[in-house]
Amino acid sequence: MVSTFMFKSLAVVGATGAVGREFARLLEHHLVGVERIRLLASARSAGTSLPVRGTAITVECLTHDSLTGADLAFFSAGRDVSREFAPPAARAGTIVIDNSSAFRMEPDVPLVVPEVNPQDLDHHHGLIANPNCSTILLAMVLGPLHLAHPIRRVVVSTYQAASGAGHSAMQELQHQTGAVLAGRRFQPEVFPHPCALNVFSHESTIDESGYNEEERKIMAETRKILGHPNLAISATSVRVPVLRAHSESVNITFGEPVTEDEVREILRGSPGLRVVDDRPANHFPMPSEASGIDEVLVGRIRQDLSQAEGRGIELFLSGDQLRKGAALNAIQIAERLQPS
Amino acid sequence: MVSTFMFKSLAVVGATGAVGREFARLLEHHLVGVERIRLLASARSAGTSLPVRGTAITVECLTHDSLTGADLAFFSAGRDVSREFAPPAARAGTIVIDNSSAFRMEPDVPLVVPEVNPQDLDHHHGLIANPNCSTILLAMVLGPLHLAHPIRRVVVSTYQAASGAGHSAMQELQHQTGAVLAGRRFQPEVFPHPCALNVFSHESTIDESGYNEEERKIMAETRKILGHPNLAISATSVRVPVLRAHSESVNITFGEPVTEDEVREILRGSPGLRVVDDRPANHFPMPSEASGIDEVLVGRIRQDLSQAEGRGIELFLSGDQLRKGAALNAIQIAERLQPS
Repeated sequence: MVSTFMFKSLAVVGATGAVGREFARLLEHHLVGVERIRLLASARSAGTSLPVRGTAITVECLTHDSLTGADLAFFSAGRDVSREFAPPAARAGTIVIDNSSAFRMEPDVPLVVPEVNPQDLDHHHGLIANPNCSTILLAMVLGPLHLAHPIRRVVVSTYQAASGAGHSAMQELQHQTGAVLAGRRFQPEVFPHPCALNVFSHESTIDESGYNEEERKIMAETRKILGHPNLAISATSVRVPVLRAHSESVNITFGEPVTEDEVREILRGSPGLRVVDDRPANHFPMPSEASGIDEVLVGRIRQDLSQAEGRGIELFLSGDQLRKGAALNAIQIAERLQPS
Repeated sequence: MVSTFMFKSLAVVGATGAVGREFARLLEHHLVGVERIRLLASARSAGTSLPVRGTAITVECLTHDSLTGADLAFFSAGRDVSREFAPPAARAGTIVIDNSSAFRMEPDVPLVVPEVNPQDLDHHHGLIANPNCSTILLAMVLGPLHLAHPIRRVVVSTYQAASGAGHSAMQELQHQTGAVLAGRRFQPEVFPHPCALNVFSHESTIDESGYNEEERKIMAETRKILGHPNLAISATSVRVPVLRAHSESVNITFGEPVTEDEVREILRGSPGLRVVDDRPANHFPMPSEASGIDEVLVGRIRQDLSQAEGRGIELFLSGDQLRKGAALNAIQIAERLQPS
């Protein structure tokens, strides 16, 4: 989609990370009206250069002056950097779209998946939060369903890729897998556990309830995006040896009977989704097909036989964690914010 | 555990498969009273030899005479072989423990996880079914919980290893992963989809309900093992790039309030389980630690925040698919069947 934006100057903060690099790639075809692009990162990464629209741009060190004059800034350098640099930038007139979790649950900060709750962009104060990656993919499917038939409860188990833990985690998965295949010993460095040919509970901190931070994000952010503070939702977040697309097994309880055909029809008509649900061919959403594309794949849509009165639906989704799960969603927010 | 069995002659049918090889390894320390061990397979595999208790045993071709004189036979050569050879062997006096799905749901065939429903062995007719691998692991956890607090509903999403599809699938995962890392093209042969660094819905046939055969096994067999024909249960079976241990994310609804401490206590006291639930260390069940051991690992035990009145529990388990998920469980059945 080629846009004709009036944003003229754009900065990417955290440009050398996995999400930052994806921003740089997506700018090839998005926000084409932007004339000036600055890439910013920590002192450690400053000086390297990244190709953007065919030109090598040198990454500069982020300072408190870096964002002066920028109409728009994407932040993807972690919670601490966002906490320090995003609010002053927003106060100075830059529209900040923040990929960290720093401000997502602030009541006056919109948390937006453009296909699901674009109306929440109407009242921003210069700072808009991009949701957690697993949450975006889940909300893409739950959003249109909830609009048609109120959802009561969701149980989700994730199959999360290494990319969610950054560029170095993707490299660790590749190097460690090579070591395992060659029978060499290895020391996990980025992840706390072996990631090659293994599966482990998400590495984020566990709170006293027993849920980890990633699961808490999925649960709290989904409620905010759907505008459904009473949604009963439980998440289990698990890492799998996949490079850059997350998958989720989703069990939904509706407040009323809903047929699988209805669900399939609703999802087929929803922007940003592609229904992949070919039972005879055993062809369903997979990370290998979700990687590198914009759409979230959804399939395995079936009546949940464990729920009475046809109020339950099971489904499975896969989506690119770096693209719709992060950089693309942030860019789509910017595209919706075209200055009037 | 060293047993003093009166079974004197034993045959392993399907000896060269992934499960058959695990049988051979386990016989080192199990059923030590058995004096004669025969390894049987199809004509294609006959002639190879496998080490059993330090001696190379030549694999013989399975014929209708092969089981004559065997006190005990383990079948793990697929449904068709079991259908043809198991019933006549049982009629001729051999006790058959069948790892295929051929007879599992027959009303007069016990389907047994020895720690959960050993009483079902009291009335066998020479043929005992070993449950599906995912089902055994799940029943190991649900069994003791259901005994203490009746379970109403279970939602399970699996993370299944390649070994469930046999020795050639394990080889495909290794070879294909090497190819992907080296940037070489590959053609999936055993699995219908790429298995390296990918996740896909279980390859078994989907029926008109939208559930696949593996999921149907988990649902039907769990009901039979627990003696709970009305259990509401829904399964989603997914392959992950792991060699030989399955994991499962399990959401349980009890008929009454149950605390996570109670659940942990029950599982800690249950044979064959090891609770791995260290929140500060972020240490939970993983295939890398479940592989090659007898116990099923269980952890991430927490109150399900999406269920009212404390009636919901979330947990995660990992277990060796070839060992407790197949060969070990069958051997344990035999150990319970010590002739009187």
